[in-house]
Parts: sequence; C-alpha cells; structure tokens
Amino acid sequence: MNDTLPDVKFLGFDVFGTVVDWRSGVARAAAPFLQKYGLEVDPFTFADEWRALYQPSMQQVRSGERPWVKLDVLNRGNLETVLSRHDADFGRIADAEIADLNRAWERLDPWPDSVEGLTRLKHRKAIGPLSNGHIAGMLNLARFGGLPWDVITGAEVTKSYKPMPQTYLRSAEAVGLAPYEVAMVAAHNDDLRAARAAGLRTIFIRRPAEHGPHQRTDLEPEEAWDVIAETLTQAADALGCN
Amino acid sequence: MNDTLPDVKFLGFDVFGTVVDWRSGVARAAAPFLQKYGLEVDPFTFADEWRALYQPSMQQVRSGERPWVKLDVLNRGNLETVLSRHDADFGRIADAEIADLNRAWERLDPWPDSVEGLTRLKHRKAIGPLSNGHIAGMLNLARFGGLPWDVITGAEVTKSYKPMPQTYLRSAEAVGLAPYEVAMVAAHNDDLRAARAAGLRTIFIRRPAEHGPHQRTDLEPEEAWDVIAETLTQAADALGCN
Repeated sequence: MNDTLPDVKFLGFDVFGTVVDWRSGVARAAAPFLQKYGLEVDPFTFADEWRALYQPSMQQVRSGERPWVKLDVLNRGNLETVLSRHDADFGRIADAEIADLNRAWERLDPWPDSVEGLTRLKHRKAIGPLSNGHIAGMLNLARFGGLPWDVITGAEVTKSYKPMPQTYLRSAEAVGLAPYEVAMVAAHNDDLRAARAAGLRTIFIRRPAEHGPHQRTDLEPEEAWDVIAETLTQAADALGCN
Repeated sequence: MNDTLPDVKFLGFDVFGTVVDWRSGVARAAAPFLQKYGLEVDPFTFADEWRALYQPSMQQVRSGERPWVKLDVLNRGNLETVLSRHDADFGRIADAEIADLNRAWERLDPWPDSVEGLTRLKHRKAIGPLSNGHIAGMLNLARFGGLPWDVITGAEVTKSYKPMPQTYLRSAEAVGLAPYEVAMVAAHNDDLRAARAAGLRTIFIRRPAEHGPHQRTDLEPEEAWDVIAETLTQAADALGCN
C-alpha cells in the first residue's frame, strides 16, 4: 500500500474523543458515586457538564490569567464545581473518593478500532499523544487500554495547551522533527486548523458519537485535511501500514 | 512468583550501558567514518574517548556554568573535540556526516536480554527511560531496538542531568508517583546511590562488558541495592513478572 504522507515520521494524537471514548468512561465511573451520595443527575449529563468546563479552564491558562498546571489539577477543580452545582455535601465525601473519581480520565475505553489502528500505524511511524492530558494521565490511560505509544508529547512536555502554536511546535521539536514531518491526528476540526497553521500535516478521524447520540459538532471535516478517515484502521490504510 | 518490590509502580531505566551496548554501536558507526577520512584510531578507542567527555560536558550544565541543553548537543560538541584531537580536517567533512555520526547514539543494539526483560517487566510495572538522553534520542533508540517503553522520563522532561536529585524526583512526579513507588534500574552504582538518596528504590544490573574486556568499574554492587541481577530477565524474575 502507498503512504499518502511519506514525509511524516511522527503521528501526534488527540486522545480524548479521538482515541478513547471519554463520555462513556466518565459516566461509568460517576454512576456509583452519584448514586452513593444521592446526586440526582444522569451520569452522561454529569460527564457532559464536567467536560464542558474543560476548555474554559484551559483558557485561563492560555490567556496567562493562571500559571500552567497539569490537566488533572484543572479536572479536579472542574469536578468540584460540577459537584457543587448538584449540591454535593463535601463534608460527607472523602477527599480520596473525589481524587479517585478524577482518575476516571485515566480509565477510558479505546474506540473499537483504536488499538488495532495504532498498532498498525506504529509499523511505519512513531506514535504518541499530542494531547492536553498530562504525562501520568496519558501513561495510565495507555496501560489501561493497551495503547502502544512510543512517546508522550503535548501539554506537559511543552507547558502549554492546544490550540496554542507552541504545543504543536515544541512537541515536534521534542521528537526531533520539523513541523511538516509531524501529522496531527484528531476528531476535532479546531485542533487540526491550529496544527495546520503551525505547519503540521493533518489527519481527521470522524467520531460522530464522542458527544453521544445528539452530537452536532465535528460530524464532518471542515477543511481539506490531508487524510480523512472513519477509523484509525482506515487511517493506517491511508498511510500504507499493514 | 513473588514481587520483591510490590510498592513500585514505575521502573525508570538508565539506558546507555544498562539497556543498550553503546560501545559496540558507536564503534560500528565510527569505523567507516574513520576509515573514509583516514583517522588512525581504533573505533572502540574512539568510542571510549567520545564517551569519556560525556560526564564532564554534563557537569558544565549541572554546575550552572552552561544552561541546560539536550544530550545530542553535548554529544555533538564532544564529537568535534575528539575528531579535532585526531586531526580531522573539518574542511573535508560535510556537516551532515558529522550529524549522522552523532546519531550513532540512536542506533545502539540492546543487550541480548533487554527486549525480553523489558517486555516481561512491563506486564506488572510501567517502564521508561530515566536517562540523561533526550526525548527524541530515546524514542529513536527504542524504535531501532524494539524497546517497549510506556513513557520517556529523565533529563529532558526534568531539564536536569543525573545524578542531580531533581532528575529522579521530577521524573517520579511526571509519572504521578511518590519516589518510593519508583525504582531506578541501572548498571552504575553512582546512579543508584543518587536515586536512593532521592528516595527511590534501586535495581542493579551487572553489565561487566559495557566498557569492553578491561572494564574496572561497576563490576560489583557497592551497596545493598534492593534487587541485584545479572540481566533484565533476572530482574523480571525478582519482580514476579512472567
């Protein structure tokens, strides 16, 4: 098979949504917690509410309003915000239980094609997260789901959050490559737009169920990305990886 | 099998000497270069001379005399120093050839037990370089030799060179663990002494041929390290990893 991106030596992956199904995994972890403390909210709604605070909390870091901290710190603050909204009684909840729920982001199932797709892609290209997740989170998620990364790049290595240009550029630098030798693999048009603006190549993976059955965003590629695929195994086909 | 270090969740590896045979690999890469340019020095001697400049060059960074730079930058400067000593005519040598020779450090064979040992250790523990090598170098070395790392920690992630305490401590922090949950795996007593002083557990691997047939250092463990093994497969036995 031909490789449509022969100059690319490293594939940097968005992880939450592109490689793993965060919504189901967070809902699964939240369900017994919500039940135990009598919080009357659907676990999927809870997952969506928690996730909705993700971008605003990173924006505080991007804008310089807040110094760079790892994603688990942002997630923990956001979790407490959502719990407060549902009138959680923090006096009854052990800190260790909140910490454990926060680690739901490290126990998410890969999409059905992810492990096979990554394994095949790895035959020809180096692969790694180019995610806003922190190193320990990406490590634990990989061991949970069997994601065969070669290296972990992204937010913690670059002390910045996508879509800032330096997240892409310093990740490329960390793996010893020029931007055009790196492809960003993501289910999100915004991520790919920023990656392309930084000089990276782009691979769009359609994940129409990331946000559940009523998803309205990122259902289609919004630009002529270098590769457009339904799954990571289809992306492997496009890159000539058996 | 029992795990003698049940609290340990991450094994951080010294790489040059402990996991891969740098001396043979550097000599192999240097031989055709030395012949082409008529430099009359045995390739193994050349490898030893190049390696002898490794610690002094890092010491300039540790002491603060020089800002932190990646290991390939130090190796490149040291390579030019050694070539100069042997009266290399830099006017005749293309920069790309020197750069390629400098990448000899990314094309080193694992010791015969390394891939099997790491593969087995990975069944129970997360594994990664805790090396003075830079991220790209560790990535390329892993892909060259099939080293199945989960993550890359060490000098570049911590912007420090072992045996500074922060290389160990910030590597542990990067993988989300306390120092006692991390074991340093090394063939060098000095590395283990510094790791232990920082609170890490210690695994000594005897590598009596790292420096060739006349090696005089690190032939024996000099302290009661937590595990002492002849090979990485033997270390896997000690950690209960089939």
